Amino acid sequence: MKKREIPDIIVSRLPVYLRALRRMQAQNQQTTSSQELGEQVGISAAQIRKDLSQFGEFGKQGTGYNIAFLVGKLREILQVEHAWDVALVGMGDMGHALARYQGFSDRGFRVAMVFDNDPEKIGKQVGEFIVRDAREIGNAIREAGIKVAMLCVPATIAQAVTTQLVEAGVRAILNYAPISLSVPAGVRLQYLDPSIGLQRMTYYLD
Amino acid sequence: MKKREIPDIIVSRLPVYLRALRRMQAQNQQTTSSQELGEQVGISAAQIRKDLSQFGEFGKQGTGYNIAFLVGKLREILQVEHAWDVALVGMGDMGHALARYQGFSDRGFRVAMVFDNDPEKIGKQVGEFIVRDAREIGNAIREAGIKVAMLCVPATIAQAVTTQLVEAGVRAILNYAPISLSVPAGVRLQYLDPSIGLQRMTYYLD
Repeated sequence: MKKREIPDIIVSRLPVYLRALRRMQAQNQQTTSSQELGEQVGISAAQIRKDLSQFGEFGKQGTGYNIAFLVGKLREILQVEHAWDVALVGMGDMGHALARYQGFSDRGFRVAMVFDNDPEKIGKQVGEFIVRDAREIGNAIREAGIKVAMLCVPATIAQAVTTQLVEAGVRAILNYAPISLSVPAGVRLQYLDPSIGLQRMTYYLD
Repeated sequence: MKKREIPDIIVSRLPVYLRALRRMQAQNQQTTSSQELGEQVGISAAQIRKDLSQFGEFGKQGTGYNIAFLVGKLREILQVEHAWDVALVGMGDMGHALARYQGFSDRGFRVAMVFDNDPEKIGKQVGEFIVRDAREIGNAIREAGIKVAMLCVPATIAQAVTTQLVEAGVRAILNYAPISLSVPAGVRLQYLDPSIGLQRMTYYLD
């Protein structure tokens, strides 16, 4: 099946299914149902069946989904069977947090290099990394063939750094800067925005 | 309309629409279409029209949506017309970043108090806050009537702190700890998970 045939909205739900399935796996659970998965992720069982059916026949009527099989399939679809090297730019508070974040391992990512433009930070150790000069971004990323980056720089320079990253070959950017960015067609961009997370809950508060 | 009648999946998209609309507003744009909005957020125009129609008649055939009106409506629906006080627990890297984050203002939130259990951190200044002793969480939150919290503690104590927060009256938790949490019915929980953001993009990489 060609990639473009799957709507973005479905692709965006698959990592959430994957996370829930891996939680079940960690608890030694073998099988699940669209009903149970739906309750855990807050999406209807019908929607889950419909989403997964886009990619093939994963479940059996009556016996549900084999979790290990479905996890393998989702990792394959999302292309996270192997770890992607990730460049991290901006070593302020958020950059520090991400450089030491324990939640990437075994989910398809590995921070490979970290950058900042502050002479006070360049050459210093953060977690297991030595902070590199942001002027090296282009060459370093091109040389390593890195396609994925996380952006934690101030809003004022976020667009300029984004342009550098894209020119160096980055095709997927996770943006923590509180600003809207422009990228050319073919480059993916996701925002990690705490206000969005909070607004998704206030609707339900009395 | 009763809150429970709106599916969670639709509610979860409204903050994304709101952010895009506010960007348009910041560029002095007056009106938009479901087509344009859809292109900006990566959701089909039909889906957007369907989502918004759950809440009333917002657009006019041919003239599109008045942005200021729709922003006002979405803020009203999401209950972010006024700022919610937020408690921030865990003053590691991520907590520091959030205490100084500039993206909450005017989006419905205000960090009101910050906590940690580390004697080295308690009493110290972070941004405009003095870090309070985590043992005060219960009383402080109850007294201030705080309903919203952000959790940036290590995974090992995340569930214990969550239980404390809920007992103190918190009803919405944004979790940065890389661990799955249990909350009683009626308490909302959102995960801000960088791996999910990254996995939503790797699908598209060659």
